[in-house]
Amino acid sequence: MYNFDFYNPTRIFFGKDRLNVLQTNIPQDATVMITYGGGSAVRSGLIGKVKAELGNRRVIEFGGIEPNPKYETLMKAVEIIRAEGVDFLLAVGGGSVIDGTKFISLAVHYNGEATDLLHFGFQSITSTTVPKVLPIGTVLTLPATGSEMNSGAVISYNHGKFPVMSEMAYPKFSILDPTYTYTLPTIQVANGIADAFIHVTEQYLTYPVDARVQDRMAEGILQTLIEIGTTTINEPENYDARANHVWAATMALNGIIAVGVPQDWATHMIGHELTALFGIDHGQTLAIVLPSLLEVCRDQKHAKLVQYAERVWGIHDGSDDQKIDLAIEKTREFFRSLGLKIRLTEHGVTADQIPTIVAQLEAHGLTALSETGKITLEVSKKILELSL
Amino acid sequence: MYNFDFYNPTRIFFGKDRLNVLQTNIPQDATVMITYGGGSAVRSGLIGKVKAELGNRRVIEFGGIEPNPKYETLMKAVEIIRAEGVDFLLAVGGGSVIDGTKFISLAVHYNGEATDLLHFGFQSITSTTVPKVLPIGTVLTLPATGSEMNSGAVISYNHGKFPVMSEMAYPKFSILDPTYTYTLPTIQVANGIADAFIHVTEQYLTYPVDARVQDRMAEGILQTLIEIGTTTINEPENYDARANHVWAATMALNGIIAVGVPQDWATHMIGHELTALFGIDHGQTLAIVLPSLLEVCRDQKHAKLVQYAERVWGIHDGSDDQKIDLAIEKTREFFRSLGLKIRLTEHGVTADQIPTIVAQLEAHGLTALSETGKITLEVSKKILELSL
Repeated sequence: MYNFDFYNPTRIFFGKDRLNVLQTNIPQDATVMITYGGGSAVRSGLIGKVKAELGNRRVIEFGGIEPNPKYETLMKAVEIIRAEGVDFLLAVGGGSVIDGTKFISLAVHYNGEATDLLHFGFQSITSTTVPKVLPIGTVLTLPATGSEMNSGAVISYNHGKFPVMSEMAYPKFSILDPTYTYTLPTIQVANGIADAFIHVTEQYLTYPVDARVQDRMAEGILQTLIEIGTTTINEPENYDARANHVWAATMALNGIIAVGVPQDWATHMIGHELTALFGIDHGQTLAIVLPSLLEVCRDQKHAKLVQYAERVWGIHDGSDDQKIDLAIEKTREFFRSLGLKIRLTEHGVTADQIPTIVAQLEAHGLTALSETGKITLEVSKKILELSL
Repeated sequence: MYNFDFYNPTRIFFGKDRLNVLQTNIPQDATVMITYGGGSAVRSGLIGKVKAELGNRRVIEFGGIEPNPKYETLMKAVEIIRAEGVDFLLAVGGGSVIDGTKFISLAVHYNGEATDLLHFGFQSITSTTVPKVLPIGTVLTLPATGSEMNSGAVISYNHGKFPVMSEMAYPKFSILDPTYTYTLPTIQVANGIADAFIHVTEQYLTYPVDARVQDRMAEGILQTLIEIGTTTINEPENYDARANHVWAATMALNGIIAVGVPQDWATHMIGHELTALFGIDHGQTLAIVLPSLLEVCRDQKHAKLVQYAERVWGIHDGSDDQKIDLAIEKTREFFRSLGLKIRLTEHGVTADQIPTIVAQLEAHGLTALSETGKITLEVSKKILELSL
């Protein structure tokens, strides 16, 4: 097991009818900016309920944070906050709204051009750079990204997707009420399952370092997603299935399965280019890329792939290679069972576009991906070819 | 899954050679009280290394915190702190030292008789009662109790063991270096494995509430302890085995597997009486009581016991009852394989002493134990008879 640091101070309020915690977890005299997305949270009545719980607090609403939240949109909120004086940010939405709100929180008191904050990569932004942030609370409406309990965000700017990490960006609290996700479009639920699944594989399907608790936890999240996947899609109001989806998605990226182990993230890096170039949903890009990546990197990931086959899929017969083949096939079938498109061609992306994708990877410096750095542009090309 | 709240702000520094984080995680101008136990941390040189990292900070040492830390001992530290002015508590030791240090932290600014703090039970002590606490850091030397990453303590007073819980008692940070545990006596390592194992079963072997991630995580910790148990005892300097032991023990009681599920704790309650009456090590009392309790409560725990048999022990043949029998037998064998005594009679406790134990349970109001409250004194008596 590698040395590690772990810290996660986000307070979770999980379950039915938890909105009343807003009363005691936001200062009485705070001016609160409620951030949200395209308006489904307004139409569902959730924003109204949130405002009711906020009582006499002054409230400013900021809607319109788009999927893959854009820098320009978020800076409009920053301007309003600077003009109006806001003490607390309350994000009501999914990963994009929460990610965007984290960026707003960091940008408000940054003394400089806020685009600077897009260039720290996976290096944590500290109080040396940003002296002060606005505290954030979240009300989650989409189980997928884990943003509700982590310190990261991904911000879109100029056709690029930029990771922004800061310990200061951990939400103070997150309300996870599975019933708020009942009205999601089916495709978003499916995307969310794929997203959570691949958050886990990025931290698990690498090489073994004898981190047994972490491995078993990762496998447990994957097994849970497999077990409840089609149920929570076909029966959106099945509370237990959705509750397991929500908590699995949060646990998939709150740092706890990442401790002391190598991490990959190549599937995400390649997937980001597919979203940027073709507008394919984030979760679907991952479902397309992962199986092909596992196929191409089967030597580098050999030991963990066999473990994955045995423990997650219960495959105990055959040679190691046969186990790996079957596990990859079952992974694709699982994504297909969720109703996801699992091939680039299903999205209209064809072989002649692969050089464009590879060029974008090169332009973004993504020439040595994965836990070993061995996914060169040539390897990425192979992965994309297998994804057609 | 039940509704739940989760919050754990302790920062973990895990691995080899982490003491240098003391330099940046304790204020430069702090007066630091280092608390420790019987002196093994002095003899091993660890206290010396800690002091070296503290540099010019004023340091006060307070040794002699005993196993099952006593109120009277801890209040001596409180007196010194009140007289000398201390800003930060640094606990160097195992669960008893850390538990005791949490109590010191809470008692220092309590305006009243500190014995009051022993009577909150499992109700969290808040800032309404204790306006201010001293921040705590820990350097762990014994993997067992999980105290390094939770908000609880158990304090001994007048032949009773009293739980003390407070969010304010979470350590600010804990340094978990597996190499600091290499010199532990074998029996303490074995006790630590049993303690961690039974922390998990208290939160897992109850009744199902469809909490899939939590179940898989609990099973993963149990499997890890089973896999590394005899190795880490026979090869104390096997880093990977010990690292897994340390992290499993921390994860067993940091709250993460407890979310949204029922909890038992009857084994601990009965075990506490055995420690108080006969001085049997905490871990060993648990290893004695658990298998008998599972036997007696096999109906109330039926579904989870079958799951335990199948998933933790890989028992797939036979009837449910046969699976349960074999799982309980394997549990006993596991504790035995660690070198633990697993019968009361091995500690010289005989049938004629059972009424005394039951009387103590009654005196402490422990007459309706477990997740269902169905472990009456009569049931406890049966459990003890099976434990002879």
